[in-house]
Amino acid sequence: MKCKVCGEKAVIKLRQHNLALCEEHFIERFRREVERTLKKYEMFDRGQPVLVAVSGGKDSLSLLHVLKSLDYKVTGLFIDLGIEGMSEKARAKVEELAARLDVELVVVSLKDKYGESLPEIAKRRPQHRICSLCGMIKRYLMNKTAYDLGIKVVATGHNLDDEVSSLLSNTLRWDVSYLAKQSPYLPSVHPKLAARAKPLAFLTEREIAAYAILSEIDFHREACPFSRGAKTLFYKHLLNEIEVRSPGTKLRFYREFQSFRKRYLRDIDTGMPPLRECKICGMPTSLEVCAFCRLFQRDN
Amino acid sequence: MKCKVCGEKAVIKLRQHNLALCEEHFIERFRREVERTLKKYEMFDRGQPVLVAVSGGKDSLSLLHVLKSLDYKVTGLFIDLGIEGMSEKARAKVEELAARLDVELVVVSLKDKYGESLPEIAKRRPQHRICSLCGMIKRYLMNKTAYDLGIKVVATGHNLDDEVSSLLSNTLRWDVSYLAKQSPYLPSVHPKLAARAKPLAFLTEREIAAYAILSEIDFHREACPFSRGAKTLFYKHLLNEIEVRSPGTKLRFYREFQSFRKRYLRDIDTGMPPLRECKICGMPTSLEVCAFCRLFQRDN
Repeated sequence: MKCKVCGEKAVIKLRQHNLALCEEHFIERFRREVERTLKKYEMFDRGQPVLVAVSGGKDSLSLLHVLKSLDYKVTGLFIDLGIEGMSEKARAKVEELAARLDVELVVVSLKDKYGESLPEIAKRRPQHRICSLCGMIKRYLMNKTAYDLGIKVVATGHNLDDEVSSLLSNTLRWDVSYLAKQSPYLPSVHPKLAARAKPLAFLTEREIAAYAILSEIDFHREACPFSRGAKTLFYKHLLNEIEVRSPGTKLRFYREFQSFRKRYLRDIDTGMPPLRECKICGMPTSLEVCAFCRLFQRDN
Repeated sequence: MKCKVCGEKAVIKLRQHNLALCEEHFIERFRREVERTLKKYEMFDRGQPVLVAVSGGKDSLSLLHVLKSLDYKVTGLFIDLGIEGMSEKARAKVEELAARLDVELVVVSLKDKYGESLPEIAKRRPQHRICSLCGMIKRYLMNKTAYDLGIKVVATGHNLDDEVSSLLSNTLRWDVSYLAKQSPYLPSVHPKLAARAKPLAFLTEREIAAYAILSEIDFHREACPFSRGAKTLFYKHLLNEIEVRSPGTKLRFYREFQSFRKRYLRDIDTGMPPLRECKICGMPTSLEVCAFCRLFQRDN
């Protein structure tokens, strides 16, 4: 297998593009794809500070790495959820890469700052799925940290597999309020709400893993202990079955959806109440007290 | 397992509705569901003649049976495609049921009327997939026969599994021109074009098979020899995997899509050229000569 660009020995074959590449040209292409997504969705430019949420996994560490190597002004954010057997190991990987890249890293520990770890909060709230709680808490802390630091954009490592899995799930329900928001970039809609960018949204898990390995990024490899049996993993598996049969399906499903969304789901009324400020923390919410602050209210 | 209505021994459990039913109440429900779909989509009423396309399989024979038993004015249409080892056997099943129900049956033989069977046509046209040719030929002959008989509606036995499989396929490509037309009922858009109705669109393959067996309909059980490995079968398999995990997904996917379609895909411009009449057969087409007549042109 030879590199389509230079004819040297290829290290990866991208079946969805019918493209084999050597290390150099794979990395070059990866960087170009990230730049293309940044530009196409007008996410942010080199002058603008960006908060990169890093979990310690291959996706977010690769994102931090590629953005830094492309000269973007990145700050890392690690949210320590206090999950035993995971958070500490993940944090070590993040700290290691941040030090190597000479990137500023902010660590927010849920337990230290708010008194309880995610599993402790989840235990008090058996009526909520832990993955929903986790998502809500991370979204809140990403935005709050960005706001406190005066950073207007939060970037996350969501990859194409994450995006199509969630797109399939929302499509099976034709959930318009979710579909309308499923974009690689969501601009800010409130002065205290950071824009949300997913610069890796068009790159597969496999491409990102290859980038991480070739860039010698030591990432946390274990899945979250709570993710077992999650629906998103099931949908990823189904979409991979389709991809094997028809390479390129995942990319087309997501790309064509973006055109569809812009054309048919633009400016739709998702029925969400207007945003106001939480009476406890002051951050944007559609309720009197935001979902995050309600977690710590005594009577809840 | 007991019938939820009368407490007698149930013969079927409908997991998507968490509903077990005895024979009597299953049949009653099946008939009610068909009537509900007919009314909801204003497909046709009892005074109006309907041409029911019957292939000999469980779906179309059940459709003929249930519509006749509900006192609709049905005529059967069997299109003999001349597929060896299949068409004759299928035709026998159709003739048997039509005779038993005392329903008029029209048989159109491709070979007798146009000189060639489907496999013969397909052999001359290796650039086309036989399933596409078959679909086009059947659509043409259903419509042409209805027009010749002065019947304004053609009903087909498409079931929920057929519909969601094709919906998934169109959604993975976000093919708006197909999505906009994916409805249990398509009204006529030209004086020579019959309306198309799918009264079984909200009933699963399994429910229809149960109806056929309980109604003692002897149907053709073998799959078409050309369908092996078809993408629709693959998508049906995937959707069944999802259904096992989350019962009701198929029904919700299709039902919610119908609301979505009416709301967001109504009156969209699908970019189709306007219909005119084929200069050979006079039937509606977007081209000078329709796709069916082009099959038999010498220079093609």
